[in-house]
Formats: sequence, C-alpha cells, structure tokens
Amino acid sequence: MRAIELNGFGGPEVMEWTVTVDPEPGAGEVLIEVVAAGVNRADVMQRRGFYPPPPDASSVPGLECSGTIVELGPGVTDWKVGDRVCALLAGGGYAELAAVPTTQLLPVPEEMDLAAAAGLPEVAATVWSNLVMTAGMRSGQLVLIHGGGGGIGTHAIQVARRRGARVAVTAGSDAKLAKCAGLGAEILVNYRTQDFVTVLADAGGADIILDNMGAAYLERNVEALAPHGRLVVIGLQGGTTGSLNIGGLLRKWGSVHATNLRARPRAGEGSKAEVIAAVRTQLWPDVAAGEIFPVISAELPVAEAGRAHELLDAPETFGKIVLRVRD
Amino acid sequence: MRAIELNGFGGPEVMEWTVTVDPEPGAGEVLIEVVAAGVNRADVMQRRGFYPPPPDASSVPGLECSGTIVELGPGVTDWKVGDRVCALLAGGGYAELAAVPTTQLLPVPEEMDLAAAAGLPEVAATVWSNLVMTAGMRSGQLVLIHGGGGGIGTHAIQVARRRGARVAVTAGSDAKLAKCAGLGAEILVNYRTQDFVTVLADAGGADIILDNMGAAYLERNVEALAPHGRLVVIGLQGGTTGSLNIGGLLRKWGSVHATNLRARPRAGEGSKAEVIAAVRTQLWPDVAAGEIFPVISAELPVAEAGRAHELLDAPETFGKIVLRVRD
Repeated sequence: MRAIELNGFGGPEVMEWTVTVDPEPGAGEVLIEVVAAGVNRADVMQRRGFYPPPPDASSVPGLECSGTIVELGPGVTDWKVGDRVCALLAGGGYAELAAVPTTQLLPVPEEMDLAAAAGLPEVAATVWSNLVMTAGMRSGQLVLIHGGGGGIGTHAIQVARRRGARVAVTAGSDAKLAKCAGLGAEILVNYRTQDFVTVLADAGGADIILDNMGAAYLERNVEALAPHGRLVVIGLQGGTTGSLNIGGLLRKWGSVHATNLRARPRAGEGSKAEVIAAVRTQLWPDVAAGEIFPVISAELPVAEAGRAHELLDAPETFGKIVLRVRD
Repeated sequence: MRAIELNGFGGPEVMEWTVTVDPEPGAGEVLIEVVAAGVNRADVMQRRGFYPPPPDASSVPGLECSGTIVELGPGVTDWKVGDRVCALLAGGGYAELAAVPTTQLLPVPEEMDLAAAAGLPEVAATVWSNLVMTAGMRSGQLVLIHGGGGGIGTHAIQVARRRGARVAVTAGSDAKLAKCAGLGAEILVNYRTQDFVTVLADAGGADIILDNMGAAYLERNVEALAPHGRLVVIGLQGGTTGSLNIGGLLRKWGSVHATNLRARPRAGEGSKAEVIAAVRTQLWPDVAAGEIFPVISAELPVAEAGRAHELLDAPETFGKIVLRVRD
C-alpha cells in the first residue's frame, strides 16, 4: 500500500506519500480500505518529533479514518466485509489500509458522506470522554469551550447543546464566533478583544471548561469556574507548566483534570474500547439521526498532507480538515 | 453561657473564655450542652484573622463538638432531649451551648467517651467527603496521606484500611510513623530524611493523595501519582499558588481537586448535610463497632484553648486535641 511516512522530523516536507508494507489485521481486528483520514494537531506534533506514537502503534500519522472493511482478523464475528466504518486509531490513518481493533470501530450511517465521517471518531471520543465521562456534564450546566471553531470545539458545541447544556465559546474572530452561534453556542467571546473571565463571571461561572491551551490559560480558567466547576485540559498549546491557584480552586471545590486519548490502553479501565463503546451507545444514535454531524472545513488529497497541517492554524479553518485517500 | 470570644486577631492571647449570649435552636436545629470541642487548624487561622466564619455562622471558634441535646428547635422529631451526640459545626464549638442543624448531628455510641467523640465529626466528614466522595477510593488502591500523624491523617489511615486500600503516609518523625503503622499504614516516609516521590514511585505511584500542603507539594504530588491518580488538596499549609505540570498530569489522565468543608452549604448538592448523611450510613457502623475510633492526643480545659492551638504543631502531638467544656 501507499502511506505517509516521515523521513525525519520537522516541517511539512518530511511527510512523503510512498509505498510501504501492508498492515495485517490481528485477532479481534479488521482491515479497512481507507477512504479518508482526519487531521489532528497531534499529527503535527508527531511530525515535529514531539509526540512519538505509543508502543505497537503504526509510525504512519493519523489517529482516525473512514472506509470499508475489506478483511476480518481471527475471531471477528460482529462486523463483515463491506461495512462502512470510521475508526479511532493509535496511528496509521494517513494510508490506503489500516488495521484496527473492532472495539475502536463505529458504523457510518447510510446518509453520511464516508469521507466526512473520517473527521468524527477522534473528536467524538475526545469530547465524550471529557465532557461526559470525566466532567459529568448535565443538562442546564454552562460549558465553556475554548477554540470553539476547531474540530473539537465544533463537535463539543453540538454535544453540549444536544444534552441540554448552555455553551460559551472562545475564538479568534467574529466570523468564527458567528458560525459557533450557528451550532448553538450562546455566549461568544472573541479572545483578541474580550476577557473570557469577565464574560463568564457575568454568566455565573463555567460549570465545565474544555481547554486546549494548558498553562497559558490555567490561572484564568480557575477564575472562570463556577462552584464545583471542573476544568478539563486536553491540549497544551499554551505550554505545559502553569501557575495553579489552589486556594481559589479550594474556595470553589473545583478540580483540574488532564487527559489524553491516544495513550489510553486498547482495553480495560479508561481504554479506547470503553470510550468508543460509550460513544456508540450514547452519542451515535444522534449521529445516525443527523442531529450531530461532522463539521468539515476542507478536504485535501492525502498527498497534500503538509498543506493540511498548515491549514489547521489558518484563520479561515472552521471544523475539521480531512485527507482524501481514495475516491 | 460562656464561650471563647476573640477580642481581636492574633496570638493565643486574643481568645477569652467569657460570658456571651446563649444560642437558640432555629427550625430543624437542636441545642447541645457541650461536653467537649475538637480543635482544628482552621480555628487557628480564624484566630489570626485569615479565615472569617461564613455568613450566619457563630463568631465563636470551633467546628465540632460533642455533648447532650437539651432543647429541640421547631420541627425536630428524629432526635430527643438527652441524646448523646457529636456535631459538625460552621462555628461556635468552643462554648457551653451550641445550636446545630440536625443534618449535622451524629449519634455517639454508648461505649464511646463523649469528650473523645468531639474529635470525630470534622475528620470524619473531611476524610469521607474527600477520599470516598471526591476521589472514589476503592479496595486495593494505594492512598498517600500527608501528615499521617495529624487529626485528619490518623482518621484517614483507619478509613482507607477499613475499605481495603493500602496506605502510605508522610510524617516528620520516626516515632509518629511507628504510630501510623500501628493504625495500618504500610509505607512510611519520614519527610525530613526521605523523598516521598521516590518511595511512591517504587510502589507504583499513588492512586489517591490526600494533601494538606498545597503549593509546596503540588509538583511532587503530581509526580507521585499513578495513572488515573487523583490529588485531593484539603489544606494550604505550604502556600496557595503552586506550579502545576499539566503535561505530567495529562500523561497520567490525572486530576487535582481542592475542597473545603466549612464553606459547604447547609443543604443541597455538596452540602454538609449530604456529607454527614453519607458518614452516618456508611462510616458510622464501623465507628459504632469500634473498628474506627477517635485518636486523641490531648484533652485540655477549654479555658486553655490558646495552649491547645500551640499543641497542634508540637512534635509530640499525634491525632486530635480536644477542649473539655464540662465534666
């Protein structure tokens, strides 16, 4: 098969669409003929050499893909060749073929474009595991989502609204904020011109904050929490080590959580299997009904993966970028 | 009645045992003729002016007491005059009489010394709300308890052991550590001569850390956590604002919680009533059976409250200090 291999660490130029060895489905796995792969910030980190794949994962980038099952590994009985699926991967998505445990598969609804479905597994697993499983989001709560216009943000807005929460978002332009409002966000904060702490304080504080900035926002996030509030950090774009006002947190009975999806084990407590099972039973009916949908900003040929990585930070990007592997 | 009033903020000398107004039990409250009051570090902070009582709380120090019910407020049917009780208070324990909502009462078992029972409500509510309700402690987990020889520490060791957890403690002397071992602690760290991070790493990391040091231990506590570990900060003896390595926390899917008992509301979510109800149904049978008992280091006459405060930091103190109000 062909796949994106890294011939070093660095800029987009280290990614090469080239011939490599076909993956083989092991016990409990299936082989997917990939139609599209979702692009994630973690792929960029991996390309730069800052985020090595976990042991046993493919060295090919790509944490999610969609496509058709073409082969069943030993012991697989609940899926069949020809099934349209999308999958959460530990790596290997930027490729023509991907082997994946069936516990990380999700069925793609008939009405959904198969390429667009490549943009769902990572955001769905991230948002569900953090907002629902870690933070215990309930109807009526106020959820602050930083980076509302990103892949995770556009999905998180939908999930929070669908479950009856109120949504506040931050984004870097009024155009993005308007689109966030279209998805259901009601408190809109342009972080270039407004202080989210002030805006959230006026709204009574955030019961949950979903944060991708890490250290840079740590102090202000704690300030923006409501009593019993939970700050969930899933990205470190603003650095890793920050200042925590424990006294402030204590006065609110607050908590700070930090989680990572890729390094979760395949099975057992806190595993990818556990998260995907929850997504499938609790979120997927809404996806099948079209109530929650992939927000795709751009679709590029996989050979242009480098440009796709650059687009992640482009002002016009709203939602996910996917790479088309096969028409 | 007589009570300890603060005639200013500062050293032990600001506390005066003097005549003041009797409290009156409101609806849903009882009046307790106090036999003894437990001493807590929060009382010292209040005396120094750093920890004002919540609105509606007595200005008299004292977050717990024991004694006998002498009067029922309107609507109280489930308790009767003469009942031996101990109680979690929002303030007012250093006094001959205390009014308290029935939702903050616990019955004192027949076999238990009534004065010793004054040392139980605050530690029981603190330990249960944090180890069980916040951190979800389960059998087989490794729990690190800082300050194992303190009032909270000596109770937390017993509760963790009783629920099947393994216990590591830190303390400042080998004599205190030996006493902690007597209560069931199996990993003993003298913080003057050993690094708890190293010791805990050898044991696989702590699933839960109960911390009273705040900022001073924040970085090392995160290092000492096991995967999915939970750090629960209940005291800030080492400062309020510390450095949090979110990246380190993220790699472990860890969380940092900070809680406070005194400022919890009287009723509703996360209230004192909720905590005491859990303590009464889940912990109190073990207290009644003598499996979990108050560890009392010293009992002093209430007029010597100043000396009791000094004793909190004395090297010979192990467990709680109580103030005797009535023989």
